[in-house]
Amino acid sequence: MFFMKIAADVMGGDHGCAVVVDGLLKALRTFPRIETLFLVGDADQVACALDRQDIGDPRVEIVPAGSVLTMEDRPVEGLRGKKDCSIALATNLVKQGQAEAVISAGNTGGVVAAATIKLRTLPGVDRPGIATVMPSETGEFVLLDAGANIEGKPRHLMHYAIMGEIYAREVLGKKNPRVGLLSVGVEVGKGNELTLETFKLCQRLDLNFIGNVEGHDLFTGNVDVFVCNGFVGNTVLKACESLATNLMGWLNTELRVTPFRQAGAWLARGAFRSLKQRIDPDAYGGAPLLGVNGTVTIAHGSAGERAIANAVGHTVGAVEHRINQRIIDAVATANEYLFPAKSTLVGTHV
Amino acid sequence: MFFMKIAADVMGGDHGCAVVVDGLLKALRTFPRIETLFLVGDADQVACALDRQDIGDPRVEIVPAGSVLTMEDRPVEGLRGKKDCSIALATNLVKQGQAEAVISAGNTGGVVAAATIKLRTLPGVDRPGIATVMPSETGEFVLLDAGANIEGKPRHLMHYAIMGEIYAREVLGKKNPRVGLLSVGVEVGKGNELTLETFKLCQRLDLNFIGNVEGHDLFTGNVDVFVCNGFVGNTVLKACESLATNLMGWLNTELRVTPFRQAGAWLARGAFRSLKQRIDPDAYGGAPLLGVNGTVTIAHGSAGERAIANAVGHTVGAVEHRINQRIIDAVATANEYLFPAKSTLVGTHV
Repeated sequence: MFFMKIAADVMGGDHGCAVVVDGLLKALRTFPRIETLFLVGDADQVACALDRQDIGDPRVEIVPAGSVLTMEDRPVEGLRGKKDCSIALATNLVKQGQAEAVISAGNTGGVVAAATIKLRTLPGVDRPGIATVMPSETGEFVLLDAGANIEGKPRHLMHYAIMGEIYAREVLGKKNPRVGLLSVGVEVGKGNELTLETFKLCQRLDLNFIGNVEGHDLFTGNVDVFVCNGFVGNTVLKACESLATNLMGWLNTELRVTPFRQAGAWLARGAFRSLKQRIDPDAYGGAPLLGVNGTVTIAHGSAGERAIANAVGHTVGAVEHRINQRIIDAVATANEYLFPAKSTLVGTHV
Repeated sequence: MFFMKIAADVMGGDHGCAVVVDGLLKALRTFPRIETLFLVGDADQVACALDRQDIGDPRVEIVPAGSVLTMEDRPVEGLRGKKDCSIALATNLVKQGQAEAVISAGNTGGVVAAATIKLRTLPGVDRPGIATVMPSETGEFVLLDAGANIEGKPRHLMHYAIMGEIYAREVLGKKNPRVGLLSVGVEVGKGNELTLETFKLCQRLDLNFIGNVEGHDLFTGNVDVFVCNGFVGNTVLKACESLATNLMGWLNTELRVTPFRQAGAWLARGAFRSLKQRIDPDAYGGAPLLGVNGTVTIAHGSAGERAIANAVGHTVGAVEHRINQRIIDAVATANEYLFPAKSTLVGTHV
């Protein structure tokens, strides 16, 4: 069996350190292949959270952190000012080779910045992207970038197409994943400057690029990988979370209005349970940050115990699949083919 | 009573001319204040559609069109090549003062282009925007632009804030509507170049600007007007339509799995009916194009009879509210205040 070490930033989640620690310990019980779990955070709070649990797992190691990057901190400036913050120290463990993966439910921008600055992007990749997995009619799909790179450039999006395809194939087990460019219409020529340029690049990639797709395609199961810039991806993701939550809430309210409806809801409770499972955000609990030199999982800020445990599970899976080497190879091939003269340069001018 | 004339492009809808005509006639029966309804389209098809209905309403006038702008046509080029297409002729009727409003379920880009070229934008407004109304926890909200202006500039979005606020106040009856800028986080400083610049402009407007909002706020009822560029608005709108449709479909499937669930669904059927009504896209059937010199309603391409009839109803309301004069006044004030030196110039350089 392949053993691994995981560094967890236990600070910064919406529900506090104890909930994150509980989720991590739950995962530790499920995954014997985790050799060491570093709990990085305020030493007192972590000790207190551990004391609440009745187990003394020898695989747990506390790494005391002097500060926390809060939601109010600007990522890069915050990291510069708080060198001993939990996300910085947790990421350092990966940088120094003491851990294979890092997981955090803290400030998303901070996690992205720490990973980009400390671990660096993979060779050939200019900017990392957050790959969010969501449920579709036929299973699940990946949307990236979901917010790591707000002003994505065509070359960045082209790399997202490559990385998303590899993730869908290797981790989600999709055969020949269909990769679509999220635009405002499916016809060639629809879109903005960014998508029109990205389209030209993606067309020449050695993958199953199906061209422009639009919002209507998202949950249909017709597309496996949606490529977009971080602004669009983040907004779409949050809009869909808001709609799903509110729709279920409205249905819940309607089902309580009369005793008949209440009785009906009770009889049909299995259907609601299945639907909730299908759209359960905690099933993933986190999204991988693709394109950095290490395995990084960004857990939902609002992740509860189960969500954290599941996020650890996906992190374990991501480490095992070793997709980074595949990304390096595929990106190198694409860069050489598409930018022969400048394949070794950072292509921010594209 | 105030009478009005409406020009309807009956071609280009997904379900064909007859469905659009049926919807229009249905609206005609509901709104006696429609003095004349111009049916603009293929003469044979329109006559055929009218023959199916057993009424000869003297208010109906057929305007034969020689061609149709299809979904494959590029808007501006298409209009140049098909001068006798239904959307061009219908818009001409408004331009020539023969009708107050135009409605079309055809090529959205074509409707926007025809309105912009023929009717021109309102004084001070550079680009029109599509205002989509969607249901929220507490009623409804407006999202604009939903796709008229894919590469929106800060000045355009600032005008959308003004126009959306007026629409929410005058047509939806909201008191002091809360206007938010759709971004990737609520903190000041979150966003991309476009939203950061737009934020600075909106901050100085004489309206209830609540700052950055994000996708999570969409359906909560905490915001009345969401301002974004056309690419983001169109993608968010379509993503939400896709999610709502698929969620309801998944629930429907789950409710059929066992006889217990079927019985429960039958008992609780009132709840599902209420929920469907609440999120019914046909309740609006169309979205106003704000910022052009006339009243323009863009109906859903997939609009059925009822959706078309409702779209006519909202068009009648929009004409009655005469919001264009309010938009002209508010935009003039804002332009003078924010761009004192160049208030009379078209501000594409902002």
